[in-house]
Amino acid sequence: MFYTDGKLQYPVRVENPDPLFARALQQAIGGVEGEIRVAMQYFFQACGARGDPKFRDLLMNTAAEELGHIEMLATAVALNLEGAPLSLREEVANDPVGGAVLGGINLKNLLSAGLSAMPVDSDGVPFDMSHIYASGNIAADMTANVTAESTGRILAVRLYNMTNDPGMKDMLSFLIARDTMHQNQWMAALEELGGAQEVFPIPNSFPQEQENQEFSYAFLGFQNDGSEPVQGRWTEGQSIDGNGSFSSRPMQPLGEKPNLGRAKPNSGAQAEQL
Amino acid sequence: MFYTDGKLQYPVRVENPDPLFARALQQAIGGVEGEIRVAMQYFFQACGARGDPKFRDLLMNTAAEELGHIEMLATAVALNLEGAPLSLREEVANDPVGGAVLGGINLKNLLSAGLSAMPVDSDGVPFDMSHIYASGNIAADMTANVTAESTGRILAVRLYNMTNDPGMKDMLSFLIARDTMHQNQWMAALEELGGAQEVFPIPNSFPQEQENQEFSYAFLGFQNDGSEPVQGRWTEGQSIDGNGSFSSRPMQPLGEKPNLGRAKPNSGAQAEQL
Amino acid sequence: MFYTDGKLQYPVRVENPDPLFARALQQAIGGVEGEIRVAMQYFFQACGARGDPKFRDLLMNTAAEELGHIEMLATAVALNLEGAPLSLREEVANDPVGGAVLGGINLKNLLSAGLSAMPVDSDGVPFDMSHIYASGNIAADMTANVTAESTGRILAVRLYNMTNDPGMKDMLSFLIARDTMHQNQWMAALEELGGAQEVFPIPNSFPQEQENQEFSYAFLGFQNDGSEPVQGRWTEGQSIDGNGSFSSRPMQPLGEKPNLGRAKPNSGAQAEQL
Amino acid sequence: MFYTDGKLQYPVRVENPDPLFARALQQAIGGVEGEIRVAMQYFFQACGARGDPKFRDLLMNTAAEELGHIEMLATAVALNLEGAPLSLREEVANDPVGGAVLGGINLKNLLSAGLSAMPVDSDGVPFDMSHIYASGNIAADMTANVTAESTGRILAVRLYNMTNDPGMKDMLSFLIARDTMHQNQWMAALEELGGAQEVFPIPNSFPQEQENQEFSYAFLGFQNDGSEPVQGRWTEGQSIDGNGSFSSRPMQPLGEKPNLGRAKPNSGAQAEQL
Amino acid sequence: MFYTDGKLQYPVRVENPDPLFARALQQAIGGVEGEIRVAMQYFFQACGARGDPKFRDLLMNTAAEELGHIEMLATAVALNLEGAPLSLREEVANDPVGGAVLGGINLKNLLSAGLSAMPVDSDGVPFDMSHIYASGNIAADMTANVTAESTGRILAVRLYNMTNDPGMKDMLSFLIARDTMHQNQWMAALEELGGAQEVFPIPNSFPQEQENQEFSYAFLGFQNDGSEPVQGRWTEGQSIDGNGSFSSRPMQPLGEKPNLGRAKPNSGAQAEQL
Amino acid sequence: MFYTDGKLQYPVRVENPDPLFARALQQAIGGVEGEIRVAMQYFFQACGARGDPKFRDLLMNTAAEELGHIEMLATAVALNLEGAPLSLREEVANDPVGGAVLGGINLKNLLSAGLSAMPVDSDGVPFDMSHIYASGNIAADMTANVTAESTGRILAVRLYNMTNDPGMKDMLSFLIARDTMHQNQWMAALEELGGAQEVFPIPNSFPQEQENQEFSYAFLGFQNDGSEPVQGRWTEGQSIDGNGSFSSRPMQPLGEKPNLGRAKPNSGAQAEQL
Repeated sequence: MFYTDGKLQYPVRVENPDPLFARALQQAIGGVEGEIRVAMQYFFQACGARGDPKFRDLLMNTAAEELGHIEMLATAVALNLEGAPLSLREEVANDPVGGAVLGGINLKNLLSAGLSAMPVDSDGVPFDMSHIYASGNIAADMTANVTAESTGRILAVRLYNMTNDPGMKDMLSFLIARDTMHQNQWMAALEELGGAQEVFPIPNSFPQEQENQEFSYAFLGFQNDGSEPVQGRWTEGQSIDGNGSFSSRPMQPLGEKPNLGRAKPNSGAQAEQL
Repeated sequence: MFYTDGKLQYPVRVENPDPLFARALQQAIGGVEGEIRVAMQYFFQACGARGDPKFRDLLMNTAAEELGHIEMLATAVALNLEGAPLSLREEVANDPVGGAVLGGINLKNLLSAGLSAMPVDSDGVPFDMSHIYASGNIAADMTANVTAESTGRILAVRLYNMTNDPGMKDMLSFLIARDTMHQNQWMAALEELGGAQEVFPIPNSFPQEQENQEFSYAFLGFQNDGSEPVQGRWTEGQSIDGNGSFSSRPMQPLGEKPNLGRAKPNSGAQAEQL
Repeated sequence: MFYTDGKLQYPVRVENPDPLFARALQQAIGGVEGEIRVAMQYFFQACGARGDPKFRDLLMNTAAEELGHIEMLATAVALNLEGAPLSLREEVANDPVGGAVLGGINLKNLLSAGLSAMPVDSDGVPFDMSHIYASGNIAADMTANVTAESTGRILAVRLYNMTNDPGMKDMLSFLIARDTMHQNQWMAALEELGGAQEVFPIPNSFPQEQENQEFSYAFLGFQNDGSEPVQGRWTEGQSIDGNGSFSSRPMQPLGEKPNLGRAKPNSGAQAEQL
Repeated sequence: MFYTDGKLQYPVRVENPDPLFARALQQAIGGVEGEIRVAMQYFFQACGARGDPKFRDLLMNTAAEELGHIEMLATAVALNLEGAPLSLREEVANDPVGGAVLGGINLKNLLSAGLSAMPVDSDGVPFDMSHIYASGNIAADMTANVTAESTGRILAVRLYNMTNDPGMKDMLSFLIARDTMHQNQWMAALEELGGAQEVFPIPNSFPQEQENQEFSYAFLGFQNDGSEPVQGRWTEGQSIDGNGSFSSRPMQPLGEKPNLGRAKPNSGAQAEQL
Repeated sequence: MFYTDGKLQYPVRVENPDPLFARALQQAIGGVEGEIRVAMQYFFQACGARGDPKFRDLLMNTAAEELGHIEMLATAVALNLEGAPLSLREEVANDPVGGAVLGGINLKNLLSAGLSAMPVDSDGVPFDMSHIYASGNIAADMTANVTAESTGRILAVRLYNMTNDPGMKDMLSFLIARDTMHQNQWMAALEELGGAQEVFPIPNSFPQEQENQEFSYAFLGFQNDGSEPVQGRWTEGQSIDGNGSFSSRPMQPLGEKPNLGRAKPNSGAQAEQL
Repeated sequence: MFYTDGKLQYPVRVENPDPLFARALQQAIGGVEGEIRVAMQYFFQACGARGDPKFRDLLMNTAAEELGHIEMLATAVALNLEGAPLSLREEVANDPVGGAVLGGINLKNLLSAGLSAMPVDSDGVPFDMSHIYASGNIAADMTANVTAESTGRILAVRLYNMTNDPGMKDMLSFLIARDTMHQNQWMAALEELGGAQEVFPIPNSFPQEQENQEFSYAFLGFQNDGSEPVQGRWTEGQSIDGNGSFSSRPMQPLGEKPNLGRAKPNSGAQAEQL
């Protein structure tokens, strides 16, 4: 069950409302790296967590934090939009800066939401919940979360570099710090699950003798001239999961050209295919 | 530039065509954990790779492999669909097994594709390219790839457990092995980039003194009763990136209730809001 | 800011796990009438609420409740999925009930989520945040909320009628009651805003003398034979907003056939269009 | 069956073609508040209308009108796009106004449609038919229609305020008037169904004694400090449906922390979860 | 402007309601080959038609017909759904046929629409208006329409073969005939535009001397072993547009490996990429 | 199986990086007329091709080419984005050209991809794989491919006209030539299948005596005044498929107003509908 106090986790100040920056901030709300994504991802992972209940608690606790981040960013978007023009009046059309602003914002923030935030990205595309990864495997979920917080911190850094507004920089310095913590936190959870050698290959519950082990640690080459593929840590030494040794070689097809034969009668094919 | 020989990377045999399993296999083609996703993700990451060109080569080489995996799975789907009925004839309607089959497949595989594979998931939802993560940051891309191969291997394992067909089990034992390799391969790339302490927090190019460091390594609690949040590796010891020490504490709101004030005239609000 | 205690607002019991019912329950999570929709809708409406702050509080409070409803339903889905088979083993294929179950569930619940809930509807389609209506007009938001709770209660009633499980019926009797309250609550908010005659036409801030008043209260007919359109309360008597009187008449086109003229050179049209 | 005369319901004139306004008008075609939505919504509601056939006629008649509104707006978009540049020639790049125009339009209107209208919103996002609400319950459909016309009129008002073109203002003054009528018309239909006390709670066919009536008219509080939630018409007096009395109180969780136990073998979980 | 008489273009009879066939019919409403697609495609092509106005009339006339086809199919879906069970009562769960039916339908047809048609495909995926192709080039539009009617007739044939219901077979024999006409009609329009040699390459307004004519009629090979690509009409003889002669040869890359260099400072890349 | 050499099929040069043109080029990558679409469409058509295997080879060979075109365009996008500003610094905000650039690009290219290409269209909307048409009917697939290459060449021409950069014009002159070839190639395949009179109506395997032949070659009128519909090649002469003669006449409804009767109890309708 969830509770609220309606307050912001961290202060949100905008000294110079900038509608173009409002558009950029939308990515942090409704982009695939944004806060709706992490809030809902941790929430659904928590709801499906089987095994040690501490992971459920860990996930649900952080889901609650991320809901508050959406709240902060939605406030920041609305405050930045205060500066948007509501008309294409002649004087604005002749004013290149005003025109650029009106042309540059997500028009839905104005037309659909009346100068408020929406669950869309910086190009106005609505967030789609297929981006909520909750696999039923706690280790895969943790790797997904490291990814989400990595792209999330990259985004926050890009936003930080884009603005000169002191209030926005302050808010983003807080969110960047939280992303630092969350990257570390999910890696710490992987460490608690045993670290790379225990955790991988995910899922670790599948007996590796049932996989075709000739191909488990071989870096295969698909270079047109049959040459060796690019060498690196991935072509020599012990595998990261500790269960094998890396090698490399060009790949040859082991199968034939597939032939599906003729189409079934009544299947809507052309007569020539029957 | 890409080339083909039209052959399969590994043999695809179906001994007992099973249309329900065809539906399940669609997830491995067009699901968010599927092969279109990894093929296109590695492709776009390669196209945007800046810095050391070996990562571009590594990514493009593996993209080529994954294209061949789509080809294998599409063949497997078509072969399994050979057993699907094309009509709801009385005799089928009265035959519960036949009815279950027709009710259980993705009807689009029959109605739109004439018993062939489609770029959709196991519930008939088309793949959406927003799932292609290519961040412009090579380390974040690698974590995204570990995630993709982790969920991909989980999916392949679930498919392996679902079928008894020897041909399908053989094909999946190969794909599972490749997922093992690919998980290891992307982790090896992270190791080549310096390992956790060099790589994290991502992006490592942002000066951490510009983030609000009070919150960089603190696990904050959002429990309704103000209690300490769940303890674990994430609440004590050195942080995984090596740059701080974990701590934990309940969070108090640092901001106020936001107040956007009154709506602008001409903004389409109710008169009471102006 | 949000807080959690990890507990369920109301007990969730499943006496006889039923994977087909799990599929149906997904509609109440990720369907357009579902709980993600109302939770996020009230949340975004709150974040954009301008004018009297009590509406913000009202909305955010109910958003918190709806988050807890997602949690309840996700638990119910996972418990019902406990009964799902994980394989298409021969014995199941020959068992029509088992086959129907495996054919009838959203396969993603098994393949992607490992027998847990997902933010998708009952046919496996992910929820899309474009369904979050938050208009910047408090009265329009309230009408959208009445709609959401009306379709939400219809859905809950259909689910109630579909199951015989006592635990599920009990949970749904609670959710149906909450939908009753929420329908009434949003109508009460409209009453507090002055009732139909003050609130409509939405937005009430636009001067009606600027609309083409010849057409403001006329029910226009588009019957092919030019006959009067169907009569009812909408063709006679005072309008519901109190500002006019209903009338009706067949419509004649007032405009001409549009003619866009010829295509521009260099616009990619055929030569014949230039 | 539908018929056409190819003429416009109301004249569409554009005195000063404005490509940025064309972009804004796209919201009224393909936005969630737009004309495709209402045309198709009334159409599908009509097709599924059971019970008194007059509602079917009412809905199909208005669907026909809305099809004509799409036609008007598509004409307006094409006429406004006549002013768009087709190149990024040097002289345009140096002309800030020209550059703002080209940067500010939906590029698909130019690149995909050759300066014509598309079924997309003002940010170029295609309309998605999941927004067609047709519930099989005539009262819920009417509330959805009041919502659609409310947000539709807000949008038309925002467009009216955005332009100074006399032709566009004239067209919009007509469309705003029709939205006034349609809001009133659907409320009139609700009145014909008995008004709030007969209609609500929707569906009125479910016996309220089967809902958990302790929670049917209680405004529950989810404030973190356990305080009373915000008071208003929704916390006291007779409920709007006339079947109860409003009250309010803080909510306590009635359920426990959910525990899904251990994961099934073969379900793709980590070994630690089994 | 559009008009209606509420009648069906052709009789719709269902002798034996079949909910599984209702699901299949949904593809003809909301699938990418379905009637919403053609209705809206012809409508938008008409609205954007520049040049000879007879094409606008041709398109809008056929759009009106297709709207009536949606109406027919929506009626057919509702009539077939009359046979669907509304509960998972014990007796149904034990009745494999009943279970298969409930498992096999799109649950949204029951849960969201109350046994009525929806604008979704046969797997419950909503129609997305990005499938409306209206290019601003009349010839390209005609080829898109031939495609739409070809896949539409294939779908209708598959549906015809799937059912034994005399009423449904009669309705489909009518729709198949209309698809025959519409395929021919759009090809006739291409003939009126001059036939293949005048029409192609589309757009015919672009001077072919500005294209790189070395590659205009060469079938290039991408076989891994550098062999000649598959021979056929496309490798010899006059080109279909009459402007060249077909040839074939293996392709060699003409460009180098791309190298984007180093990432910009402040672009969110890893330090190693800068 | 696929192979790569990492080189570009044709040189990609950008003399003057233009971020607005990068946005336009995105349409050629992720638009519905773009290269992902054709690459994946030919790929899936090949995988499902039944009958003469030469069509499979033809399709897979061209799929390989199109993958290389994505690679070229992704490189072009990245090179053009080199000119994009990374901040909204005061000096930029006051510089109309810089502001227009930042407002005019797809912000995701900067915020999500770090100045690289993405699988989205020119308005930032991700490509959706439902646009991959692979019907299981070889002739329908060929018409779909003619359409794809027609709209693809229109797009390339519009892009060619939009830029003055010599490198970009050179690259586009190559891509336009390939579209010329591909239009001709798929038409050549249709000729090899027998030409219009053998191929149409698609599918040619359905016995035309089972369609309602009264309507197979009649152009029906839906003009509101009952007048003859617009005349043309489609109303007289032999049909294009050679199997009939065109005629025309106004249409009268042959069916009645549909009446679905009353709603079922327990179906969630209003009591008045039961």
